[in-house]
Amino acid sequence: MPTPGAPGVDLESLRELINVRLAQLVPEGAASGPAVAARHSLLAPGKRLRAIITLSAARSLGGKIEDALDAACAIEMIHTSSLVFDDLPAMDDADLRRGVPTAHAMFGQDIAILAGIGLINGAYEVVANSRAMDAERRLEVLRVITRAVGWQGLVHGQALDLSSGENTASLDAIHEGKTGVLFIAAAECGGIAAPGSTDDDRRALRSYGRALGFAYQAYDDVLDQVACEETAGKTTGKDSGKSTAVLGRRASIESATALANRHLDTAVKAVGEDTPLATLAEFIRSYFATTIAA
Amino acid sequence: MPTPGAPGVDLESLRELINVRLAQLVPEGAASGPAVAARHSLLAPGKRLRAIITLSAARSLGGKIEDALDAACAIEMIHTSSLVFDDLPAMDDADLRRGVPTAHAMFGQDIAILAGIGLINGAYEVVANSRAMDAERRLEVLRVITRAVGWQGLVHGQALDLSSGENTASLDAIHEGKTGVLFIAAAECGGIAAPGSTDDDRRALRSYGRALGFAYQAYDDVLDQVACEETAGKTTGKDSGKSTAVLGRRASIESATALANRHLDTAVKAVGEDTPLATLAEFIRSYFATTIAA
Repeated sequence: MPTPGAPGVDLESLRELINVRLAQLVPEGAASGPAVAARHSLLAPGKRLRAIITLSAARSLGGKIEDALDAACAIEMIHTSSLVFDDLPAMDDADLRRGVPTAHAMFGQDIAILAGIGLINGAYEVVANSRAMDAERRLEVLRVITRAVGWQGLVHGQALDLSSGENTASLDAIHEGKTGVLFIAAAECGGIAAPGSTDDDRRALRSYGRALGFAYQAYDDVLDQVACEETAGKTTGKDSGKSTAVLGRRASIESATALANRHLDTAVKAVGEDTPLATLAEFIRSYFATTIAA
Repeated sequence: MPTPGAPGVDLESLRELINVRLAQLVPEGAASGPAVAARHSLLAPGKRLRAIITLSAARSLGGKIEDALDAACAIEMIHTSSLVFDDLPAMDDADLRRGVPTAHAMFGQDIAILAGIGLINGAYEVVANSRAMDAERRLEVLRVITRAVGWQGLVHGQALDLSSGENTASLDAIHEGKTGVLFIAAAECGGIAAPGSTDDDRRALRSYGRALGFAYQAYDDVLDQVACEETAGKTTGKDSGKSTAVLGRRASIESATALANRHLDTAVKAVGEDTPLATLAEFIRSYFATTIAA
């Protein structure tokens, strides 16, 4: 979302807050390579979508941005860590990400791996140390994020994706494992950070995150097919031999876009129309419509 | 410590407790590879020394084993994760560890990396979910472990070691970064898990962990020089081109052993002679003496 419009003014300021806080969370001028590589990948111009989901979820429940900023940055650090690992030669072997060289392309595989470890570890560290949430809430955020990363989360999703040529895992399972789980956790953590949220609130946030994740992945697959590397800011076409791209090849761009839009409708319905989360969903709809049209 | 003597009976039962709990912490019969690979590496016959330090630290302060078992297993999962990553071709490129093939040798680099991520994540998950400690203590354990892993901890130590041919990092800095920080954290986490521990207690535990780590690394370097792969249970001689092995080449085995013994004296002095931690230090002394003599 590089050039947001009217609702984007708000997104731009959220992104700026996130970027400022992220820059504080990995030491600058470190002596050894991993922190330098981690800063390179973490502070590259990302959309910060997952972190914005967390902040918007907190706001949608009447919470303050400051309550959720550490949790949002933790989610973003987990996300960047997963990109660093997924881009390694042993995984997707990508040289470009967020418009800059990937960590291993620039610093070597060994340092990139250590940077990825440092980022995932740093995510848990910032939550454990967060002054914005009381002890129980910090632990709940940690439980939600560790579940999202673990054996049934991102780790599982990436393994499914790696072996998607050999097995019968459904597209939806891969999408949910690679993207959905962290969108769901991002939304839920924002709810936890907002004082007074209920179990029903958290259920609604999970539904929103899941639907937004499906929409985002569907759009992303379309972009991966149609965009050049310059627009996407990452190595494209790498997914074309894998089942995550089957949708893009199989269906027309129009039907994939229609599917994404239906998921966005579901997302908005889960949280109500006049909420920051609904505004975010509508922004994603118009952003991708504009990008795909271009 | 495969064949413990009299004090080893106790160590053996601690190791059994740890192994039983560890086996519960990574799902069995998982559909995808990472959890299978993680179980392979985690449940291979390790000495469980770091976890035993945690349990012994809790007992030394009058705490119960059950209070500290989750924290101990988290430390062991972090340790195994660091072995999985350090053994990768991009790092130390080792095929054998704990007497069995390394994770990447058996399951491929991609799955090994995901297993390592799952293990580090699982460590934080078990602490966040531990019923043995109250919320504040869980968070304190998380803070101690994330600091030990992070930019000034294991991540930094491994980066120093990787570049030890090119820079002037001291042997002690590499030893402390690669081994000491987790020994220190292991001891301190046991103290946190024991109700009623003071700041002085925790300071003493950190001194113990640091000294024990130096002793252990000194012994390990000697073993790396003299042992065959069968005895060490891992690929040996890999360190011989790196500065961590300079000590072994430069000094005689006798003087390295004397140095290790002085560190053990320091460790015992920090916690007092009639404590489970002191017994552990003395066991390590006699275990290595026997092994090196053989």
